Amino acid sequence: MEQTTSTYIPEDLLTQYTTVRNYTQFLCEPLEVEDYVVQPVAHVSPPKWHLGHTTWFFETFILSVYAPGYQVFNDQYNYVFNSYYETVGARVVRTDRGNLSRPSVADVYHYRTYVDEQMEAFLRQATITEEVAKLLVLGLNHEQQHQELLLTDIKYILGHNPLFPRYAEGLEREKISAEELIMLPIPGGQFEIGFQGSGFCYDNELHRHTTYLHGYAISNRLVTNGEYLDFIADGGYQDFRYWHAEGWDWVKAHGIKAPLYWHLLDGQHMYYTLQGLAPVNPDAAVCHINFYEASAYAAWSGMRLPTEAEWEVASSQFEWGERWEWTGSAYLPYPGFEKAAGAVGEYNGKFMVNQMVLRGASIATSPRHSRPSYRNFFHAEHQWQFTGIRLCASSSS
Amino acid sequence: MEQTTSTYIPEDLLTQYTTVRNYTQFLCEPLEVEDYVVQPVAHVSPPKWHLGHTTWFFETFILSVYAPGYQVFNDQYNYVFNSYYETVGARVVRTDRGNLSRPSVADVYHYRTYVDEQMEAFLRQATITEEVAKLLVLGLNHEQQHQELLLTDIKYILGHNPLFPRYAEGLEREKISAEELIMLPIPGGQFEIGFQGSGFCYDNELHRHTTYLHGYAISNRLVTNGEYLDFIADGGYQDFRYWHAEGWDWVKAHGIKAPLYWHLLDGQHMYYTLQGLAPVNPDAAVCHINFYEASAYAAWSGMRLPTEAEWEVASSQFEWGERWEWTGSAYLPYPGFEKAAGAVGEYNGKFMVNQMVLRGASIATSPRHSRPSYRNFFHAEHQWQFTGIRLCASSSS
Amino acid sequence: MEQTTSTYIPEDLLTQYTTVRNYTQFLCEPLEVEDYVVQPVAHVSPPKWHLGHTTWFFETFILSVYAPGYQVFNDQYNYVFNSYYETVGARVVRTDRGNLSRPSVADVYHYRTYVDEQMEAFLRQATITEEVAKLLVLGLNHEQQHQELLLTDIKYILGHNPLFPRYAEGLEREKISAEELIMLPIPGGQFEIGFQGSGFCYDNELHRHTTYLHGYAISNRLVTNGEYLDFIADGGYQDFRYWHAEGWDWVKAHGIKAPLYWHLLDGQHMYYTLQGLAPVNPDAAVCHINFYEASAYAAWSGMRLPTEAEWEVASSQFEWGERWEWTGSAYLPYPGFEKAAGAVGEYNGKFMVNQMVLRGASIATSPRHSRPSYRNFFHAEHQWQFTGIRLCASSSS
Amino acid sequence: MEQTTSTYIPEDLLTQYTTVRNYTQFLCEPLEVEDYVVQPVAHVSPPKWHLGHTTWFFETFILSVYAPGYQVFNDQYNYVFNSYYETVGARVVRTDRGNLSRPSVADVYHYRTYVDEQMEAFLRQATITEEVAKLLVLGLNHEQQHQELLLTDIKYILGHNPLFPRYAEGLEREKISAEELIMLPIPGGQFEIGFQGSGFCYDNELHRHTTYLHGYAISNRLVTNGEYLDFIADGGYQDFRYWHAEGWDWVKAHGIKAPLYWHLLDGQHMYYTLQGLAPVNPDAAVCHINFYEASAYAAWSGMRLPTEAEWEVASSQFEWGERWEWTGSAYLPYPGFEKAAGAVGEYNGKFMVNQMVLRGASIATSPRHSRPSYRNFFHAEHQWQFTGIRLCASSSS
Repeated sequence: MEQTTSTYIPEDLLTQYTTVRNYTQFLCEPLEVEDYVVQPVAHVSPPKWHLGHTTWFFETFILSVYAPGYQVFNDQYNYVFNSYYETVGARVVRTDRGNLSRPSVADVYHYRTYVDEQMEAFLRQATITEEVAKLLVLGLNHEQQHQELLLTDIKYILGHNPLFPRYAEGLEREKISAEELIMLPIPGGQFEIGFQGSGFCYDNELHRHTTYLHGYAISNRLVTNGEYLDFIADGGYQDFRYWHAEGWDWVKAHGIKAPLYWHLLDGQHMYYTLQGLAPVNPDAAVCHINFYEASAYAAWSGMRLPTEAEWEVASSQFEWGERWEWTGSAYLPYPGFEKAAGAVGEYNGKFMVNQMVLRGASIATSPRHSRPSYRNFFHAEHQWQFTGIRLCASSSS
Repeated sequence: MEQTTSTYIPEDLLTQYTTVRNYTQFLCEPLEVEDYVVQPVAHVSPPKWHLGHTTWFFETFILSVYAPGYQVFNDQYNYVFNSYYETVGARVVRTDRGNLSRPSVADVYHYRTYVDEQMEAFLRQATITEEVAKLLVLGLNHEQQHQELLLTDIKYILGHNPLFPRYAEGLEREKISAEELIMLPIPGGQFEIGFQGSGFCYDNELHRHTTYLHGYAISNRLVTNGEYLDFIADGGYQDFRYWHAEGWDWVKAHGIKAPLYWHLLDGQHMYYTLQGLAPVNPDAAVCHINFYEASAYAAWSGMRLPTEAEWEVASSQFEWGERWEWTGSAYLPYPGFEKAAGAVGEYNGKFMVNQMVLRGASIATSPRHSRPSYRNFFHAEHQWQFTGIRLCASSSS
Repeated sequence: MEQTTSTYIPEDLLTQYTTVRNYTQFLCEPLEVEDYVVQPVAHVSPPKWHLGHTTWFFETFILSVYAPGYQVFNDQYNYVFNSYYETVGARVVRTDRGNLSRPSVADVYHYRTYVDEQMEAFLRQATITEEVAKLLVLGLNHEQQHQELLLTDIKYILGHNPLFPRYAEGLEREKISAEELIMLPIPGGQFEIGFQGSGFCYDNELHRHTTYLHGYAISNRLVTNGEYLDFIADGGYQDFRYWHAEGWDWVKAHGIKAPLYWHLLDGQHMYYTLQGLAPVNPDAAVCHINFYEASAYAAWSGMRLPTEAEWEVASSQFEWGERWEWTGSAYLPYPGFEKAAGAVGEYNGKFMVNQMVLRGASIATSPRHSRPSYRNFFHAEHQWQFTGIRLCASSSS
Repeated sequence: MEQTTSTYIPEDLLTQYTTVRNYTQFLCEPLEVEDYVVQPVAHVSPPKWHLGHTTWFFETFILSVYAPGYQVFNDQYNYVFNSYYETVGARVVRTDRGNLSRPSVADVYHYRTYVDEQMEAFLRQATITEEVAKLLVLGLNHEQQHQELLLTDIKYILGHNPLFPRYAEGLEREKISAEELIMLPIPGGQFEIGFQGSGFCYDNELHRHTTYLHGYAISNRLVTNGEYLDFIADGGYQDFRYWHAEGWDWVKAHGIKAPLYWHLLDGQHMYYTLQGLAPVNPDAAVCHINFYEASAYAAWSGMRLPTEAEWEVASSQFEWGERWEWTGSAYLPYPGFEKAAGAVGEYNGKFMVNQMVLRGASIATSPRHSRPSYRNFFHAEHQWQFTGIRLCASSSS
C-alpha cells in the first residue's frame, strides 16, 4: 500500500493518529444529532457511518490482529460499519445505511473513544513493527479520505433539505479571481509519472513509470462560474452535440439545467454552500459538475479535458487544490500494478472499471492529503464532490 | 366528519386536548433522537414527522383560521409536515421524509409546545363554535390514529435494525389464551350497520344503513401462533392454491416464509417485540400478517374471512381489540357517503380504492379510539400493523 | 363453473365449438404475421399467445384427460401457452411473452388445426359425459373472453405504433346518439342478484342471492365524448379533488390529459380506432377510460358510479352492451362462493382482490357472451378495454 | 471518418455495395418472419430494425442529400429506423423497438429494394465525388457492423427461446485446438499504434501515434473452455477476490455461474450455438463472457488482460479473429481525435465513456471487416458478442 517507511517513530505515529482522529470529530461539531443519521441517496453515507467505519478500520486491521487480548467493542459493529471489505464478513447493503437509527451517535462516539484509548495504549508500547506502522498510516489516509466524503455528504444532506440549513462558516471558502485564461504549452515526449518520494501513497499511484505524451497546452486556471454561465446561456444543456450519449441521457432523464446546488430564484442563480444560500459568484471556479458536464463544457469551448498524465506532467506549472479536476482518463491500473495481499488489497483495484480519474484536490480535502500523483476517481454522473474543469488542447504540430 | 356535538364544554375540550397530546409525547419518551429520523420504507414515517404533522393539523385547520392574529411558527413547515392535504399546498414527496434531518427533534418539540400554548389560550376563550369544536375533535382523533402509526412505525424501525434494540416494556402485551375455537352461528336477515350514537365518528362510518346478510358462523377468538405454525408446517407458504394470484406473487418475490418480525434462529421461531426478541408463544394471537396471509390461512382451514358487515353484526358476541382483524371487504363508500367540504373532506374518501377493511382495534390502538363501527383500511400487502385473523364460514342452509 | 347442463347434444357442442374457434381466427385475418408477436406492455398479450393458449386449454383439460391415446402436439407448449394455471406446471413469466418468436404463427395455426381435428373426432363419439360437456362449454366461454382481449390487445399494439396502421373496417362501430340524459329512479328494498337460468355462467356469478339496496337513480345512457370534453375543459385532469389519491398519482406520474388513444393534433382531438385515426365524435360514448377517470368524471358531475348490484337490478331499464361499465364495486366473492376443484378452480377466485367490477359488455365482446349477471373485472388503472361511464345517484330520501 | 480515398471507381463501389447489401439479406434467410420482430432485452435489436436502419443510413446521408429529386420511401421511417443520430430528428426510444410490428418485414424488404435500386442508379452516374464515396464506404462498414450485431442478436433471440430453435449450420464454426499456451515476450519501448494504410478506417482508429509500453508477455492463443471450466470448478464465481466490485455485484444480482448460453443439463455443460444445443467442447475457445468474467479469469490465473496497445503491437505474432478479445483499456479518444462535422460526426466519439475496448474480430465479423487497429467497444457487463480471453503479464524487469 504505502511505499517504504524504513524509519518510523511511535510517538510521531501517535501524534499523527490523534491529529487526524480529532479533525474528523472537529468536522462534525456543527452537526445536530439528526444530521448524522440520514442518507438521501445511495452514494451519500450518514455521517455517523463515516465515524464508525473509520474506527472499525483501526479495530479490525490493527487492534484485533496485533493488540494482545484486545476485546472488540461490540461484535455486531462489524456488520454495521464494514464497507466493501468482503474478506471480513457480510456487509450491510449500502443503501440501507440510512435506515439504521442505532447504534446511536453517542454510542458511535463511545466506540471512537474506546478504540482511540486502546490505540493510544497500543502505540505507546515499544514494539511497533513496520507492518503495523504501514497499516496505521493507511488507516489515517483512509480516514482523511472519509473526512472529505464527510464534508461532501454533509453538504448533500443539508443542501437537499427544504430549510437549507447553514453548516458552518469558513469551510467552503471560494477563491475569487478574475485571472486571464492562458494555455500553457507542453512539448511532447517521454515522461515519468506516478508516485516518487519516501512518504505514503496509495497502491494505485505505484509504480512510477514512463509514458509518452504528444504535445499539448493546458489552462493556467479553472473554468469560472461566469464562463460556465456563458455555456448555459448558449444552450449548452440543450445541445446533444457537446455530450456523450450517456451524458445526454442523464441530462434529459433528470432535466438538468445547471450544476448541483444551483437554484434559479427570481431570475438570479443562487448556490447552496456550507454557509447557506449565496449568489453564484462569476469569478469563482465552477463547482459540483460531473464528468459529463465537464466534457460538454470543454467540447463547447473547442477543447477537451486533460488526461491524468498530461495533468501530472504539467501540474507544477499551475496552482491546483481548489477543485478535484475531472480528467479524460478512465481509472485503470498503472503498468505493474499489484494488489496487496489480504483485506487491504481490496482497497483500490476492485474499483478500476467504469470510473473516471480526478486529479488535484479540493477545498474539502484534508490537510496533508494531496500530492501531484494522487488518483481520485468517481463515476461519470456524480456531482457531489467539489469538482471543477481545467481545459486542455492538443498541439497542432 | 363527526356526527353531532350539540353540546360541548371548552374546559372538557381542553382536557381532552391535553390528554391526547401528552400521550403522543409519552409514546416517544423511550426513543433516542436518532430513532425519530429514519424511514426504512415508504409506508413507515419517521416519528418526528408524526409529531410535526399532528401539530400542523391544529395550526392549519384551527389556529390559522380561527385564532385572531395567530402567527405561524415557521412558514416552511407546511411544506415539511403536510401529508395528503392537496388543498393546502405542495407536499413533500412521501418517500423523502426519511431524508430530512431538519427540523431537528428539538425544533419539532418547540413547535408542539408553541402550538399547544396557543391552543390552550384559544380554548380558554369563551366562544368556541360548534364548527371549531368539531375540527378539534377531528384533530384529536387524527392524532390518535397517528399514535398507533407511531408505535407500529417505531416497531418497524427498531425491528429492522440488526441490533434489535428494545423500545420499552409493557406496550406490547401478549394476551395468552388457549381457549377452544368455537364458531358462533349468526342467522341471516336484514341488519343495520354503521355508526350510531352521539359521539365522534369518521365520515366513512356514516350513514347507518340496512344491509342483508346470509347466515354465517364466526369464530369466538383469533387464530393463534400455534395454529398458524400448523399452516406453515403444512406447506402453506409453498402451495399457491391457498393464495390470491397477487398474494402468491408477493410470497415468491420476497421469499416469505413466516409473519413479519419472525426469525428462525437455531430451529426456534423468535419474534421481535417492542421489548426485544422473544420466542413465539403458540397461545398468543398471530400478528403482523397481511391480507394475503390472512386469506391464505383461512382458505387452508376451509373457511374464509368475515365481511365487515358480518364482523360488525356479530361483534357484540366475541372479545375484540387485540389485533386489527382483516375482513374480506374492500374499503368502499357506504351508501350515501359524502365528502365533507374543504380540506378535511379529503380525509377518507380519497383512499377508497385498492385497500381492504380491518375491524376491531389492536394493542397499539390508543385508549378510547375504538368502536364496533370503526373502519380501518390498509393495502393487502402490508404487514406492519398489529393485525390478526378471525375465521368465518357461510351457513350451509 | 357452469351451473347445470342436464341435457346436451354432442352435435350441438361440435357446432358451438366450430363456431367459436372459427371466430377467433376470423378476428386474426387482418393481421400481418408481425402483429401476432409483439407485447408492448405486460398486460397486453401477443395475438399468437391468445391463439395458442385457448387451444392449450382444450388439449390440457379435455383431450389429455378424456381422449384415449391422445398425443400432445408438442410437450413444450405447456410451458409456452400456460397462463395462470399453477396446477399444470411452471408457466412463462408474463412479461416474457413478447420475447418469443417461436413457436411461429404457422406452428400455432398447425397446433390449432391439430387440436381442432382431435376435438372433432372426440366430440363425434357417442359418450360425452356431463363432466366433459361442462369443461367444453367452459373452454368455449374462455375462448370468447380471449376473443375480446385479442381485439383490445390488437388495438393496443397497432394504436401504439407510430404508423397508426388500420386493422379492419366495421369492428369498432361507434353508436352515435344525442339522447337526453335521464336519471331512472329505482326504489330501495331487497333484490336478488346473481345468475339465474339454465345456461352457462362463471363461478363468480353464482349463487343468486338477496341483497339490500337503498333507493337510487341511474342514467339511461352512457356519458358521451362531448360531456367528457366538458370535464377536460373544466380542468378535470388538473383538480385533485375529483380523484382518488392513487388515481391522482397516476395522472401526475403519466401526465394524463385525455382518454387512451386520444391525440390532440392541430387543436383537434383525434381518436385511434381499429379503422385508423378519426376525429372524436362528441355524440359517441366516451371510451378507454380507467376506473380513476370514470370516478373522477362522476365526482365532477356531482354523482357517482353505480354498484354492481345497482347496475344489475336496473339493467333491464336501459340499453347496455356498447362499453364495459365501471362500477363502484370491488371484485369480491359472492356469498357462498366456492372454488371448483382442480385446475379450473383457479379460474376466477384467485383474482378477487385489488380489481374493480365492470358490468355489461362492449362492442368487442363476442356474440352470445353477455348477460346481466356477468362480472368482468380489471385493475383500476387499466384503460385498454372498451370501457365507459354510467352515472348513478343516491336517492335523497 | 475514412482516411483518404484519393481514387475510386464507381463500378467498384457498386460491386462493393451490392456485395455487402446482399450479405445482410443472406444472414436473414434462415429466419422466420417472427424472428425479425422481437427484442428480448434493450441492447438486442430486432433483425428487421437492423435491415431498416442500415438502409435508412444510405437514404438519409446519400440519396436525400446527393441524388437529385430523390423521393423518400416513407417519411415516417426516419422516426422508426433512426438510431442515435440526434441531428436527424427525434428517435424511437431504444427499448421500444421490440413493440413495433409495423413496418412489416415485407415492407422493410421493399424499403431495401427501393433504396438499393435508387443507389444503383445513383452510382451508375458519372459524377461520384470523393465526399460521396467516403460516405458510401462508411455506410458499407456501418452495415458490416450491423451484420455482426444481426448474428449476435439472432443468437440471443433464439437462444432465449425455450424451444432453442436452430438457426443455420456453419455460421458458428468452433475452431478446436489443443495448442499449448505460450507467453510471447515483448520488450518495452516506444511503438506506433493506430491505423495506417490507404483503405478505410473509423475515426476512432486515427491518428497513428506514439505510445510507450513496458515489457510484457502475451499468450499465443485464447483461453479454452477447458481452462475456463477449471476456473469454475475452483470456485471462481464464488470468490470476490477475483472480481471488480461492480462485477461481483453483477454475479450476485443475477446468480451467474457460467458464460452466457451455457446450460448444466444432467451434469453436463451444454452450450447453445446457432446450430442448436451442443456439449461444451473443452478445446474450443471460451465464448460469451463479459469484461468482468474475462478480468476475473485473468486474475485467477495470476495474469491480466492486455491493454489495447499491447494487443495491437503484438498482434502480428499470434492468430486472431475467432473471438473479440477483451482488453484492459477503456474506450477513450486517441491523441488528436476529432469528431467529423455533421451527423456522421456522432459515429464514435459520443460513446467514449464507460465502455471497454475489444480487439481482433470474431467468427461473426463480416468478411473484410477486421484489421489490427480496429477498436470495438462494449459495456463491461455485456456477454452477447462472441468474446474471448487472451492473457497478458508484465515483464518482471
